[in-house]
Amino acid sequence: MKAVQVTGYHTKLQLADVPEPKITGPLDVVVRIGGAGVCRTDLHILEGQWAEKSGVMLPYTIGHENAGWVHAIGDAVTNVAVGDKVILHPLITCGLCRACRSGDDVHCEASAFPGIDTDGGYAEYLRTTARSVVKIDDSLEPADVAALADAGLTAYHAAAKAARTLRPGAVCVIIGAGGLGHIGIQVMKAISAATLVVVDRNQAAVDLAVEIGADHGIVADGTHVEQVRALTGRHGAEAVIDFVGEGGATSDGIEMLRRAGNYYVVGYGENLDVPTIDVISTEINFIGNLVGSYNDLQDLMELAAQGKVALHTTKYPLEEFQQALDDLDRGLVRGRAILIP
Amino acid sequence: MKAVQVTGYHTKLQLADVPEPKITGPLDVVVRIGGAGVCRTDLHILEGQWAEKSGVMLPYTIGHENAGWVHAIGDAVTNVAVGDKVILHPLITCGLCRACRSGDDVHCEASAFPGIDTDGGYAEYLRTTARSVVKIDDSLEPADVAALADAGLTAYHAAAKAARTLRPGAVCVIIGAGGLGHIGIQVMKAISAATLVVVDRNQAAVDLAVEIGADHGIVADGTHVEQVRALTGRHGAEAVIDFVGEGGATSDGIEMLRRAGNYYVVGYGENLDVPTIDVISTEINFIGNLVGSYNDLQDLMELAAQGKVALHTTKYPLEEFQQALDDLDRGLVRGRAILIP
Amino acid sequence: MKAVQVTGYHTKLQLADVPEPKITGPLDVVVRIGGAGVCRTDLHILEGQWAEKSGVMLPYTIGHENAGWVHAIGDAVTNVAVGDKVILHPLITCGLCRACRSGDDVHCEASAFPGIDTDGGYAEYLRTTARSVVKIDDSLEPADVAALADAGLTAYHAAAKAARTLRPGAVCVIIGAGGLGHIGIQVMKAISAATLVVVDRNQAAVDLAVEIGADHGIVADGTHVEQVRALTGRHGAEAVIDFVGEGGATSDGIEMLRRAGNYYVVGYGENLDVPTIDVISTEINFIGNLVGSYNDLQDLMELAAQGKVALHTTKYPLEEFQQALDDLDRGLVRGRAILIP
Amino acid sequence: MKAVQVTGYHTKLQLADVPEPKITGPLDVVVRIGGAGVCRTDLHILEGQWAEKSGVMLPYTIGHENAGWVHAIGDAVTNVAVGDKVILHPLITCGLCRACRSGDDVHCEASAFPGIDTDGGYAEYLRTTARSVVKIDDSLEPADVAALADAGLTAYHAAAKAARTLRPGAVCVIIGAGGLGHIGIQVMKAISAATLVVVDRNQAAVDLAVEIGADHGIVADGTHVEQVRALTGRHGAEAVIDFVGEGGATSDGIEMLRRAGNYYVVGYGENLDVPTIDVISTEINFIGNLVGSYNDLQDLMELAAQGKVALHTTKYPLEEFQQALDDLDRGLVRGRAILIP
Repeated sequence: MKAVQVTGYHTKLQLADVPEPKITGPLDVVVRIGGAGVCRTDLHILEGQWAEKSGVMLPYTIGHENAGWVHAIGDAVTNVAVGDKVILHPLITCGLCRACRSGDDVHCEASAFPGIDTDGGYAEYLRTTARSVVKIDDSLEPADVAALADAGLTAYHAAAKAARTLRPGAVCVIIGAGGLGHIGIQVMKAISAATLVVVDRNQAAVDLAVEIGADHGIVADGTHVEQVRALTGRHGAEAVIDFVGEGGATSDGIEMLRRAGNYYVVGYGENLDVPTIDVISTEINFIGNLVGSYNDLQDLMELAAQGKVALHTTKYPLEEFQQALDDLDRGLVRGRAILIP
Repeated sequence: MKAVQVTGYHTKLQLADVPEPKITGPLDVVVRIGGAGVCRTDLHILEGQWAEKSGVMLPYTIGHENAGWVHAIGDAVTNVAVGDKVILHPLITCGLCRACRSGDDVHCEASAFPGIDTDGGYAEYLRTTARSVVKIDDSLEPADVAALADAGLTAYHAAAKAARTLRPGAVCVIIGAGGLGHIGIQVMKAISAATLVVVDRNQAAVDLAVEIGADHGIVADGTHVEQVRALTGRHGAEAVIDFVGEGGATSDGIEMLRRAGNYYVVGYGENLDVPTIDVISTEINFIGNLVGSYNDLQDLMELAAQGKVALHTTKYPLEEFQQALDDLDRGLVRGRAILIP
Repeated sequence: MKAVQVTGYHTKLQLADVPEPKITGPLDVVVRIGGAGVCRTDLHILEGQWAEKSGVMLPYTIGHENAGWVHAIGDAVTNVAVGDKVILHPLITCGLCRACRSGDDVHCEASAFPGIDTDGGYAEYLRTTARSVVKIDDSLEPADVAALADAGLTAYHAAAKAARTLRPGAVCVIIGAGGLGHIGIQVMKAISAATLVVVDRNQAAVDLAVEIGADHGIVADGTHVEQVRALTGRHGAEAVIDFVGEGGATSDGIEMLRRAGNYYVVGYGENLDVPTIDVISTEINFIGNLVGSYNDLQDLMELAAQGKVALHTTKYPLEEFQQALDDLDRGLVRGRAILIP
Repeated sequence: MKAVQVTGYHTKLQLADVPEPKITGPLDVVVRIGGAGVCRTDLHILEGQWAEKSGVMLPYTIGHENAGWVHAIGDAVTNVAVGDKVILHPLITCGLCRACRSGDDVHCEASAFPGIDTDGGYAEYLRTTARSVVKIDDSLEPADVAALADAGLTAYHAAAKAARTLRPGAVCVIIGAGGLGHIGIQVMKAISAATLVVVDRNQAAVDLAVEIGADHGIVADGTHVEQVRALTGRHGAEAVIDFVGEGGATSDGIEMLRRAGNYYVVGYGENLDVPTIDVISTEINFIGNLVGSYNDLQDLMELAAQGKVALHTTKYPLEEFQQALDDLDRGLVRGRAILIP
């Protein structure tokens, strides 16, 4: 089959002909890829940033945001059948550790990560397990939802966690109205009646945020902290979801937070650097957020099926992977680039 | 009546004769002081550290850890009667804001703080309100529990919050086995079956911690992070309660934390300074902790009545306030110094 | 002032001229009534059903769903000012018991209930306290929201409780699409992405339910249990909110419930009668629901201000109270009857 | 190997020689039985009460409370190794349904139940899967903990659920101080500071309950409801855990419950029969309880390892199964009867 592989760092990806993956274990599932998201992480992999961390042997197939159709299943697979449309949770998890047994499979003690440390989805077929495939609604197409598998799932996870603590009218600031931020806005609107204030440096992003449901849009022009404080009667917001995490976002965000408020760290880059006296005197919390769990992905696919969460995508044939990566690198992709085998 | 007052900063406290407080509002409660805790904050007040923050007019009566007997009540007071033994929640709260209406009275939008910004308890009588007096069990004496009103309540609040997330055998590291730490250990033992690991620089403090229930005691000698990691199969602890918050405690503590673990900030001094990439990749949380609520104080008094939480105290007559402060300053007080009017 | 009073049981209400209520305590609030809901309970009061339970002395002013403008306030009132538009929580609560201190003021150990055991709102003015007045948004009018004060608040309370446990796509059956059911549907839609299945005996009510957001409407024609089971893949619903509670609703509802599901009892009349073996073998829960708390009423008013919850009302001048009651008794009121002084 | 089998209903169990179970799937685990609990359910199976429900084919090996040593494992088993001491969760679960993925494996959509619908543990060996074996501490012996696998796990599950809602000093009534009740008392004492009131018809059982930690013991002599009400200042208890569920226990228990209290149904037999008006006017909840989850069993084994939960057992060689059953039937077993192969 065709597969796009990492053959070396600081060199381009290569289209190769490799054997199709086969069922080897009873819980294995082979998926015919319908769409594979092209992510900034893929660029970083090629730069070698993940080489040591993942320890992956080259060559291998890249691509960690995948959806498609079930092509073959092992003997013990009961949750999907051949032909089912599925999206793939990014991790392959053990199912036996306490984290897996508690629904926190993201913290599995023995997970694999297709596209990062084992063969991924820039290919015609990918092998995962029954524990990682989520059936999607008939109304959804794999290529349209593939990019929700990782970036979207992260945004869902953070927004759903925040929504659980926010009563109607409580103020939630969303810092960063890019891809994750837009998913976050849609999720918050679908499952809460919180008041959403979106802050971004880019006027167009702010405008789009308001269009899809944000109650207030604020351009980060230096007065944004003050604007949030004014909007909240100078109390600050009950929650801040920070999809940026660099360039001063965290110090701004903390100033926007109300006493006893929750700060959700999603984006990263800079240090969270705050005096402990401030943490305790206002009794604020900082909540880490990684990608969502398998259950989160089921819930996100439900919102997608209800038409409440959607993502703009730009599709490329698999063979045009280089174009897609180049477009992403140059900021030319509207929404998310998707490779179609 | 006799009262010990702040008459100026960078000068000593003065014993004065001042009018007894009277009932002026229907929810007022005048308490005859049975014991007033002497706290390091009292030293800081004299150094002027709170002058600007509190905005208090001098002279005023100091003392924010108080217990005694109800001496007089306003018309609308229904929860205590004259003669009742009570401990005083450190704040006087409004009862009408959302925080008060939700049990989070510590975040009241219009609170007063006797001993800090209004007359406190180094005196024969103190005026507070019905919202701040907690009846204590017949078996308890005001002078014995007074010091639980603030320091103890803070430790209870953090430990009870942590206990709610800890299953039997989950590991909780307590950094700092001083006054707060000892209350924290006793509380955790009373309401959870978590495994307690106590870390302190002082061998005697560690020994005492083990004596009162810690499962493991570790002297902070540079190998303590490694020892905690070894104890936890290199996973780290599900929770760290940091009663120190300075001198490198936070960076050590974070290294002791398990994926998806909770870090409770109680002590303060240094900055919490952690890369956002670490916060998200391990999905850890930092939880701020201020003093506990009125309800927390009721619960702590219940544990005290059950004999599960006790505090060593050293008692001084009110007139010997200077001796008590001097002893505290020189580290000569065993447990907590209490002034008895 | 004019007031409509109960002067005896099994006799009609009387319009009387009574003294205006005055501020007598520091937390008192006198409200000029803008609208008072006419409730079936008012008919029951006249039938003497509440005589013993309430122990109220006759004559007294009836009316327990009230909204209006603040007319006068006591010295200690800080949360509203004269002229503010407010809705009244149905209970006057003490603020000092553990329930009040925990946000569960509905379980206050010393509450009063205007319109039931003390003077209510079929009048020009009513006296309550600062603890019972919720400011409403400028965009709302007292007469339009008055009926949310009790019936609407009960529906909000049950629906919000259910919503907290329902993930996107989880099935929630709402039994009874009358006044409470309609509020429940709107609340669920505003704060969750659960799939709503509404069951009612009346085709028109079912149609209206679907119009305002229910995902599925089912006429209770004897096949309704089977229809719900079919809709849920024979698993049953994660939640059932029963606004009926009589005529066999509970046994039908239990058959619609999934393993580990929650049954919210709101309506009443018949007995809940279920074998304990069924309770434990499917591990289902039955959750009681009374009227909501003060905080719930704030949240409901926020949803009303966001335009997400609305109630159809039919307005009558206060003097036409008898017409309103007669219309209610004969089923001629569309939505809720409101008296306007 | 030797196995004790059901060969027909209304006839005695038979000792047979059957083939040892073999590993057939990658997650299979064969356990050498160290102890198998003899349960009243085993008597009911022989009476044919489970014949239709389980649909099991005869002959088969009985016994559903099992512990022992891992004898063989499939290729994919990572959580135990040959030789490990283990206790067996009573169910074999799929790991793929939403319930399994959320830690609620007891509600697995495709579970098997060794000893009930497939071969159980009255034998030298039993086959289960990696998902059902919990490693136990070195200090514990299989024969000593086997009986915690089902009855003990049920008691743990209910008590742990109740403990999560009970603050220090809140009153928890435990109805029934038999085997489950004793485990429940020990669990509550280990993880909460609730005040425990134990009610039983048998004076000796009440005495033993007080000995192992109950704060108050009450003999159910007709005044027990009144005694509980008196003990709670006539408010009733925050929680009732009913391990009886027959003979009027539920109606008594409901009268002991406080407003907004939780009633945990564990024992069964009679109907829960309560007017819906009472459910809503006091806003009480009824919480169903089945056996605990795999995670619950891990937690219970941790409490056992800490020495906080213990069960008295009477041991019999496997061949003396008939004697054990006869003793159980005649009420001659102290604690729990355990068969040792």
